[in-house]
Amino acid sequence: MKVRVNQLNPVAGNIEANTAAIKKAISEAESADIDLLLLPELTVCGYSAMDFFERPSFLASIYKANKTIADHTAETAVIFGTVTENQSKVGKPCYNSAIFAHLGEIKAEIHKTLLPTYSVYDEQRYFEPGDDFKCIEFKGRKIGVTICEDIWCNYGNNPSVTYAINPVQELAGRGAEAIFNLSASPFDKSKHRTRVEMIHENIERTGLPVFYANQVGGNADLISDGDSMVVDANKNIIARAPLFKEAAVDVEWIGGKLNTVRGGIKQITSRLKRIFKALCYGLQEYLKKSGAGKKVIIGLSGGIDSALAACIAVEALGPKNVKCVIMPSPYSSRQSADDAKKLADNLSINPEEIAINAIYEAHLNALKPLFKNSSFGTTQENLQARIRGVLLMAISNEQGGLVLNTENKSEVAVGYSTLYGDTIGALSVIGDLYKTEVYKLAHWLNEDYYRKEIIPRSILEKAPSAELSPGQKDADTLPSYDILDAILKLYIEERCSEDEITEKGFEEKVVRRIVQLIHQSEYKRRQIPPALKISYTSFGTGLRWPINSDLQL
Amino acid sequence: MKVRVNQLNPVAGNIEANTAAIKKAISEAESADIDLLLLPELTVCGYSAMDFFERPSFLASIYKANKTIADHTAETAVIFGTVTENQSKVGKPCYNSAIFAHLGEIKAEIHKTLLPTYSVYDEQRYFEPGDDFKCIEFKGRKIGVTICEDIWCNYGNNPSVTYAINPVQELAGRGAEAIFNLSASPFDKSKHRTRVEMIHENIERTGLPVFYANQVGGNADLISDGDSMVVDANKNIIARAPLFKEAAVDVEWIGGKLNTVRGGIKQITSRLKRIFKALCYGLQEYLKKSGAGKKVIIGLSGGIDSALAACIAVEALGPKNVKCVIMPSPYSSRQSADDAKKLADNLSINPEEIAINAIYEAHLNALKPLFKNSSFGTTQENLQARIRGVLLMAISNEQGGLVLNTENKSEVAVGYSTLYGDTIGALSVIGDLYKTEVYKLAHWLNEDYYRKEIIPRSILEKAPSAELSPGQKDADTLPSYDILDAILKLYIEERCSEDEITEKGFEEKVVRRIVQLIHQSEYKRRQIPPALKISYTSFGTGLRWPINSDLQL
Repeated sequence: MKVRVNQLNPVAGNIEANTAAIKKAISEAESADIDLLLLPELTVCGYSAMDFFERPSFLASIYKANKTIADHTAETAVIFGTVTENQSKVGKPCYNSAIFAHLGEIKAEIHKTLLPTYSVYDEQRYFEPGDDFKCIEFKGRKIGVTICEDIWCNYGNNPSVTYAINPVQELAGRGAEAIFNLSASPFDKSKHRTRVEMIHENIERTGLPVFYANQVGGNADLISDGDSMVVDANKNIIARAPLFKEAAVDVEWIGGKLNTVRGGIKQITSRLKRIFKALCYGLQEYLKKSGAGKKVIIGLSGGIDSALAACIAVEALGPKNVKCVIMPSPYSSRQSADDAKKLADNLSINPEEIAINAIYEAHLNALKPLFKNSSFGTTQENLQARIRGVLLMAISNEQGGLVLNTENKSEVAVGYSTLYGDTIGALSVIGDLYKTEVYKLAHWLNEDYYRKEIIPRSILEKAPSAELSPGQKDADTLPSYDILDAILKLYIEERCSEDEITEKGFEEKVVRRIVQLIHQSEYKRRQIPPALKISYTSFGTGLRWPINSDLQL
Repeated sequence: MKVRVNQLNPVAGNIEANTAAIKKAISEAESADIDLLLLPELTVCGYSAMDFFERPSFLASIYKANKTIADHTAETAVIFGTVTENQSKVGKPCYNSAIFAHLGEIKAEIHKTLLPTYSVYDEQRYFEPGDDFKCIEFKGRKIGVTICEDIWCNYGNNPSVTYAINPVQELAGRGAEAIFNLSASPFDKSKHRTRVEMIHENIERTGLPVFYANQVGGNADLISDGDSMVVDANKNIIARAPLFKEAAVDVEWIGGKLNTVRGGIKQITSRLKRIFKALCYGLQEYLKKSGAGKKVIIGLSGGIDSALAACIAVEALGPKNVKCVIMPSPYSSRQSADDAKKLADNLSINPEEIAINAIYEAHLNALKPLFKNSSFGTTQENLQARIRGVLLMAISNEQGGLVLNTENKSEVAVGYSTLYGDTIGALSVIGDLYKTEVYKLAHWLNEDYYRKEIIPRSILEKAPSAELSPGQKDADTLPSYDILDAILKLYIEERCSEDEITEKGFEEKVVRRIVQLIHQSEYKRRQIPPALKISYTSFGTGLRWPINSDLQL
């Protein structure tokens, strides 16, 4: 039989558009004499529909669409991801399901068993788990259908949960000849490796080939990368779809053998390139799905963060769609403005320059009656950052274009930022990259991607500074970024305690101060835009810390 | 036997402080010859510890504290809310539990069965559900111990979930002579009624008295109101603790009879007064737990929203701790500034006044080279709002004090606000009150609470306006607030579809536009501060909508 795995990009909440896309995919498969078409998880409604799943009319529309899609099938059978009703009226109102449809009819409905409820996932908020393991039968074959987490069962010692039942093994035990999986699995910087490793583990355990269909597309912070594939019982990847675009792969399945018909693509082998491309794609998708046009606005400081953000924006949208604004204050160095200009020039952008001195003075004058004995300090530093925020937003209001946030994860973690100043923007482009990762990616861009000095060397080499007071350097306030980032990774990603981090050789005083800063700045993180997620543990919907906590370990 | 129900106010994450408070409560009960002390849910760690529950070292500290607390018991037994380890290593790592301790030992551990995973609750994210129903035995009595949601089982046709098992009935079936419940249940404007109704339903079903201990305290948006009580088998409230403060009630339990020993308090009977007091308490608690001192800063526009917020702040913190700043722009009416001053005067506040004209002009000048053909519009309107934001934050930086956000829920819903302008602040005081509720509360304050015109009549009577352009009125852009709020309530709280709302007699065009505005402004809501929750369905952690969705019903 000929099987197609087709990775689609649904829009969260737009059932009409997604249904049309599914019907088109079915028609195309029918024309190509495909026997069985596999689509990703929750394609009818989009994975990221969130609390729309709590709206009865939204669910009713999905149920109606399920019938419409089944109606549309003829010779080609389809397995598509959707929501189905929990008829029992006990538990949650609905299931995260796969529907198997053929010849105009719904032939089977499979419910997701393992509902991830950790990190960015809230599936037990919406769905009732399935508990019935039955293979579907098609053209004399028994197929075990699973949905996303079902196939990740207890991979990699997930600290959040240990599942009691492994759906893949249950299906294997009931005679499945292949495992089909519908996914909506987000990108992270290790996913390219872990995904294949996980599939291999399943094959080792069951001896069954895996057909894996993963959603593509961006939903605010979440980037689904696709990377759908078919892997045979010998762990050979028979076909693999590209990252970051809609695509289909076709495979001939005869007896115990799988042959590639379509889908021998060149994969992105560089980890840094995958991260770069993921960020570009996430930005493109945010703009497309927000309906806000193609233009963005970036404040260029002459520092590394805004430089990297500008490179990503130009790669994603083209230089014509990227407005760069240089806004020197009385404390900006000439070097920084020059660096910013040189970068813009290298990216074929003609930047705007607005000195903020007069606006800054106007604020100080207006506040003088209140601030009688004021000396220069945080107030004046933050003022400069906030004036820049106001100017960027005014340009956005007047000329269109979304303001991009250019903070990095190290700053976000310790609150080294001015709220309503450098924290503004519709989307944070590099907010899930630690400062050391920002440097790595910037170096890689110059050396391996552009193969020339697009990011000026002086930006790469100078000491990081917010330039909000005379001679200021980040290192005056924070430990060096290699130490800071190492501590942050241990605390945030590895969930180590302060004592455990100290035992690894970091200075206790520094560790305690960093952890305190992390929790003190939670109130800021609640007011920053979503950041394109490229790590397993990113700030935002996946990491939920209290404001005003008093963490004691 | 003498039973004490003691409502404590734990700090999220501060196990040391909470353990000390629990030990103190045990010692006090011991001194008062109490036989059995009942404390609220998750008192050892605070209910709102969120993803701290995913940190192994945090859990280890809780387990250690559990032993310390049990060690501290002597003649008085205690039932306290905490986390215990899931020894099976299958499922989630821990349980939301009650520990029964006596004579220095842990005698029993009861696991919460129903783990709410909807609205603001994420309990399946952290906890494994219990499934073992066993009464504890003490002094010849069988007691059925339940935790929060366990006793709310299927009350009021919860649209999010229908539970299959009713823990209270399971325990009644196993011979319980009373139901004890440990809660951390947040305030909402109907809770005073629903809580008693729910307890009565349980008594009707089982014939058992209910001992109910509910946490007090604020955690950012969430306000736990206390209102602990003991209700006998005839549905008489034998003792009831006050709202919004730590307190204990004592009851003598002899045979089938319950007698009040301590706890005949005067309840707040006015619904509006409860809302007002809840907001005052929430603000006090935010300040206390943030460690940010007692001072707040409010921009007074002369409109109703900032006026109400100022009344709440003065009630909560006293006039000396409330800085009011009046910031007229070229488009502010003289009347508004006068109204703001009169209000401040009535509240015994000496307001600051900063005209923003010069700053506004400085911005327009700086932007002139970019905005060649600009006419007055959104850019200039937003500019004024953002300049006010910058000034308030500068005052906060320089003089201390948290800036309060004064948006209402109607504005938040439709995005009728300037991001980084009127959306700023550490905490939103009235962000969960619709505009019509803001008016109701303001009228009630003057008429029933202050019994004089503290909020100037002209503020109550003038047409709402942002005053960002000449002659602007909210009604130019939005439907009248009674229509807007009715539509918002149907859409947000009742989860009605657009068609269902239209069928109730609202104009279809208006309904569709409002719903579109609601979803278009989700990106703004992601960047606003937490709002004190007083409704069942508030924006924030309890209502999770996608950004860039295309909702189609």
